[in-house]
Amino acid sequence: MRRILFCMIAIGASACSPTDEAPADTLATLFADGMTVVDLTHAVSADAPYWPGPDRSPFRHDTLSAHADGAPSMAAYSAPEHFGTHFDAPVHGGMGLASVDRVPTSELFGPAIVIDVTASAASDEDYAVTADDLRAWESEHGPIPSGAIVLMRSGWAARWEQGDPYYNRGEDGRLHFPGFGEDAARFLVEERDVAGIGVDTGSVDPGNARGFPAHGIVNGSGRYHLENLADLGSLPEAGAYLIVAPIKIEGGSGGQVRVFAVVP
Amino acid sequence: MRRILFCMIAIGASACSPTDEAPADTLATLFADGMTVVDLTHAVSADAPYWPGPDRSPFRHDTLSAHADGAPSMAAYSAPEHFGTHFDAPVHGGMGLASVDRVPTSELFGPAIVIDVTASAASDEDYAVTADDLRAWESEHGPIPSGAIVLMRSGWAARWEQGDPYYNRGEDGRLHFPGFGEDAARFLVEERDVAGIGVDTGSVDPGNARGFPAHGIVNGSGRYHLENLADLGSLPEAGAYLIVAPIKIEGGSGGQVRVFAVVP
Repeated sequence: MRRILFCMIAIGASACSPTDEAPADTLATLFADGMTVVDLTHAVSADAPYWPGPDRSPFRHDTLSAHADGAPSMAAYSAPEHFGTHFDAPVHGGMGLASVDRVPTSELFGPAIVIDVTASAASDEDYAVTADDLRAWESEHGPIPSGAIVLMRSGWAARWEQGDPYYNRGEDGRLHFPGFGEDAARFLVEERDVAGIGVDTGSVDPGNARGFPAHGIVNGSGRYHLENLADLGSLPEAGAYLIVAPIKIEGGSGGQVRVFAVVP
Repeated sequence: MRRILFCMIAIGASACSPTDEAPADTLATLFADGMTVVDLTHAVSADAPYWPGPDRSPFRHDTLSAHADGAPSMAAYSAPEHFGTHFDAPVHGGMGLASVDRVPTSELFGPAIVIDVTASAASDEDYAVTADDLRAWESEHGPIPSGAIVLMRSGWAARWEQGDPYYNRGEDGRLHFPGFGEDAARFLVEERDVAGIGVDTGSVDPGNARGFPAHGIVNGSGRYHLENLADLGSLPEAGAYLIVAPIKIEGGSGGQVRVFAVVP
């Protein structure tokens, strides 16, 4: 639509300068800070919520040298790969699949599809995104393109600072937070060709899922997951783009990731 | 130039369709994988060269669970913040300055300026980029824009896999690799307004520098460094853009960084 309009203006113009009628180069605009970039990453700290269970190392940040005010000028740290806002490489879900350093750069750039289930999640902590939710998005915005990253927006990031209510272990001993249902995961892998999926909760599978079906389907088919995303509320349901930048650990099953959304 | 040409074509066209004459939306092209993206990041592993000296932790990668083939499906790791391809936050060089999680996103996107000193570095391991080198770049390509990231390309990344020759301790006990000279650092901070600087060596200061003058000038003025960059040989001297995505450690003095170059 914008392109057609531009053509008409150009034809009708008496003079044709390089600056007046030409549409802006959107790439140059992005890199001249003329576009909104949203950081979808929680800061990594020892206070970050973490999956309840044994045999997992917490995050540790060790100062090696400090300024007079106590702030580190040099430090070392240790972390589980699947801690904080992080990336699940395909090998996390299936033997022989790509480790985090082997995921092609082309798969780390793609359109962001936002599936808003905030209302459903508010009334059902175990809400699982359905294939019908995805079809509803498509009926409004068109088919989910190949290479897209499909994000569940549940509003759960508001619990990040609260600690326990984030992973939300219930009196039944199980975790309760929203994620992708098995039929939705199958739809995105078998009927569409996404690069990955992401959630603003602790796992792409709902907390109370038996086993990890979405992990098996999405990671297991060579695609990646983004977990514990921040600030999805700042994104439109369609039209934004994601840049997914995981730490490049050789042979890593995943790792901390910086995720930027470009909102044109 | 391209925009003027487009205008002429549009005016001369008998029909004006949205697809034939309109210039492509470069942003959409990027995210549909229609553009070259170069990953300037070495993989993080225990084999990566590291600054010789005491009191620094090496990288450790600990498998928490493994597939039948031995590849980890879950792991934890520990690393110094200033290890591998990494980001020096301003606080690394000055008390009270921004930690890695506080660097604004707008400073992490910018034009990439490539200063090629491969020939000089081949004959002088201690080569220090000069302000004259920067002026020579400008006389060919125009002024270094505000918000740019200025990269020294010395060819040193070819030594990355060789181990000791990378940090290159000499018989004099000192390190020998190229970096930015003090006058170049001052020029970029005082006469231009860069977001940061980067090198394909282990430090923005040459290995044999007394103290860390470039660190003090660039970090100390609130700007960042990228060290141990890979594959700068794939970039043009002008025209590429950088996306700089450091791990977001709360209060961190730096950390592993994923750096992507977009080459339109």
